[in-house]
Amino acid sequence: MRPQDLIRKKRDGLVLSHQEIAAFIGGVTDGSWADYQISALLMAIFLRGLNADEAAVLTEEMLHSGEVLDFSEIDAPKADKHSTGGVGDKTSLIIAPLAAACGVAVPMISGRGLGHTGGTLDKLESIPGYNVNLSLTEFKKTIKLCGFAMSGQTAEIAPADKKLYALRDATATVDYIPLIVASIMSKKLAEGLDALVLDVKTGTGAFMPTFEKARELAEALVATGAKCRIRTTAVISDMNQPLGKFVGNALEVYECIKILQNEDDAQMRSTRELSLELTARMLVLTGVEKNLETAKSLCEAKLRDGSALEKLQSNIKLQSGDIHICDQPDALLDNNLLQIAVKSETDGFVSAIDTKIIGQIMCNLGGGRIKTDDQIDHQVGYQCEAVIGDEVRTGDTLGVLFCRHTDKVNLAPQTLQKAYKLSQEKPVISELVKGSV
Amino acid sequence: MRPQDLIRKKRDGLVLSHQEIAAFIGGVTDGSWADYQISALLMAIFLRGLNADEAAVLTEEMLHSGEVLDFSEIDAPKADKHSTGGVGDKTSLIIAPLAAACGVAVPMISGRGLGHTGGTLDKLESIPGYNVNLSLTEFKKTIKLCGFAMSGQTAEIAPADKKLYALRDATATVDYIPLIVASIMSKKLAEGLDALVLDVKTGTGAFMPTFEKARELAEALVATGAKCRIRTTAVISDMNQPLGKFVGNALEVYECIKILQNEDDAQMRSTRELSLELTARMLVLTGVEKNLETAKSLCEAKLRDGSALEKLQSNIKLQSGDIHICDQPDALLDNNLLQIAVKSETDGFVSAIDTKIIGQIMCNLGGGRIKTDDQIDHQVGYQCEAVIGDEVRTGDTLGVLFCRHTDKVNLAPQTLQKAYKLSQEKPVISELVKGSV
Repeated sequence: MRPQDLIRKKRDGLVLSHQEIAAFIGGVTDGSWADYQISALLMAIFLRGLNADEAAVLTEEMLHSGEVLDFSEIDAPKADKHSTGGVGDKTSLIIAPLAAACGVAVPMISGRGLGHTGGTLDKLESIPGYNVNLSLTEFKKTIKLCGFAMSGQTAEIAPADKKLYALRDATATVDYIPLIVASIMSKKLAEGLDALVLDVKTGTGAFMPTFEKARELAEALVATGAKCRIRTTAVISDMNQPLGKFVGNALEVYECIKILQNEDDAQMRSTRELSLELTARMLVLTGVEKNLETAKSLCEAKLRDGSALEKLQSNIKLQSGDIHICDQPDALLDNNLLQIAVKSETDGFVSAIDTKIIGQIMCNLGGGRIKTDDQIDHQVGYQCEAVIGDEVRTGDTLGVLFCRHTDKVNLAPQTLQKAYKLSQEKPVISELVKGSV
Repeated sequence: MRPQDLIRKKRDGLVLSHQEIAAFIGGVTDGSWADYQISALLMAIFLRGLNADEAAVLTEEMLHSGEVLDFSEIDAPKADKHSTGGVGDKTSLIIAPLAAACGVAVPMISGRGLGHTGGTLDKLESIPGYNVNLSLTEFKKTIKLCGFAMSGQTAEIAPADKKLYALRDATATVDYIPLIVASIMSKKLAEGLDALVLDVKTGTGAFMPTFEKARELAEALVATGAKCRIRTTAVISDMNQPLGKFVGNALEVYECIKILQNEDDAQMRSTRELSLELTARMLVLTGVEKNLETAKSLCEAKLRDGSALEKLQSNIKLQSGDIHICDQPDALLDNNLLQIAVKSETDGFVSAIDTKIIGQIMCNLGGGRIKTDDQIDHQVGYQCEAVIGDEVRTGDTLGVLFCRHTDKVNLAPQTLQKAYKLSQEKPVISELVKGSV
């Protein structure tokens, strides 16, 4: 079957057979489909749609375009968490060691940041020496030795997704739910998991701005997980403001270590709460705990007694990082950075924050990527002071920008200031966990 | 403006501005748009549509992506004919010299055959020595000296169309009228014409199978011509059977010379009639003649007195071809070819011919191209004996296949036989010229 005949079929709104979807993904993987044919079909899919069966087949074919990891030699149940991306979303660095401390093995394959959202690999690379490019052998060995490993997507894992994602990004075919689901699930299912917890973000800093769209995505993800026989659950969490206290790679790792050190900081509580919620769901899904309540207690205990921090320390050592930062997280930070306070211009309650703008300012100042091959400055960041519901007066600090002297710094504080909306009445504060599927 | 933002706009069904269409065609021409971005936008255009203004702007931008020829130094009015393609459609070889003989200059830029339809360049190349790759200087000089020239599309003429057409062919985005119109008109308008006659084919061997679709295309072509201030008319002609007596490159040139030599052959009459009709319309459009009747008389006269054949002879000489074939058209043909008669299996009237099948058989036997870089055998062809309305008996010859010994020859006669539909009642015979716009 020629690519153009298959494209024509979807162009005309017809349903593609299993064999046809397999031919498409085969052609993406072996290079026999040209990029321009792939992108034409992606646009036809975007505009004509995929039904549930086509979407499931697409996911499975993308999954089997590469290696599917086999951890049967590891006795512990295998689980992972995936987030749809947000600002200050750093839970992976707590969840992985915490789940490991609770007896769940976590083979975590992560990505890099692009646009306003961050990526776990970039955060990890702010730890001196930390190696995110493990071979599959090293990856397995690390999990065996400390219960979890964190690495980048290798060429062997779902290569079709890598190709498709790059093309979707360049052709305005990203935001269609069946394609998003296939992209996420093909990579996560390749990890050879027993269970998967999804964190679908919604709000001003999320990919899915409305709760309805987030629920739709969450349901599609869980349905696909079920079709592929992986226990899957999805949490819909709030991204109407950055998660926790810090945004920025080194600062986010700093925050995670502080939480693992049991430091109690009001601004860090949302990071702690969401990390525990997601880890507890991993424990329930894998059968390590019977219900969410006992699971949360176990997580609390393993956090309190330092087991989770110990797991992280073991992992950092195995992945060639500087373990010193687990005792001295200050060592992660460069003291010579500019610190610019963003101040409130009026009195009132913080009622909304355009979170995406904070992520975009990070990008502009070099802390994130606009293009995939941009170099990043791990030290650039933002410290959140005022959160939604806080009452502030004129001149109060809303947040503090950590950056270097560049031309772009001048406008950043005003732009950040405008990201905050103040009201005269105390706003209704939304739940951190807004729902689950 | 980034390509993906422009793609998103059309994806969402919005109208593109003049500036945006210019940015797109600019990006196609200078290579700053990747092929996969171009094809994604083409699919979005195919599914979301272009309005009349967008279509006209697209044509103009494609036209101005390259050189627009300037023949102001030539005093004669400039006109050309373009056909949407058919089987046995060889009128260009008569129209160009005939129009020149009547005082109209014809700067004819033609294409090659692909799929079941033939191309003028391939036909010309069956004349020994004939050069279809003229430089612009040679092209102009040839027109000045003999009134017409026939050459291939150079890299300088509408380069954006060349790129877009190749991508459309590979991505199932060919058959959308505004894209077809932009492709045809951008090339033809680059010829610096005063007038253009379009021959829109309809029927079993045409690109547009129904009369309604053909009329829609004809109207769109004429409307775009008018917007671009070129006197344009379109004829809708029958392609429910091959035009004239022969199909195949050398055989079609042979037929044209026979007609220019005033040989009267019943099977060749449709070629003669359509060529005269189209040439006469060129004379009226350019103001050489006042009406179609006097124009047809002039064409008849110039054909009868040998002026048209003389023009062709001058042209062949100027384009380095063997002029001997104008006296001895038999010299075009290889006498060592297999000749296989296709015979009727039953009695009845020929009521329909699946003309596309005849074109496809030509391709399969090497007389046409399946892929753009296929080499072709100019001698392969088909001689039509029975036409629609003819009464045949079992064993009568429907046509004769000219080909070489290959594995594929065995099945060809049966396939051709099946292309003929016979009925017990004499069918209604459709007009050769079915309408005009």
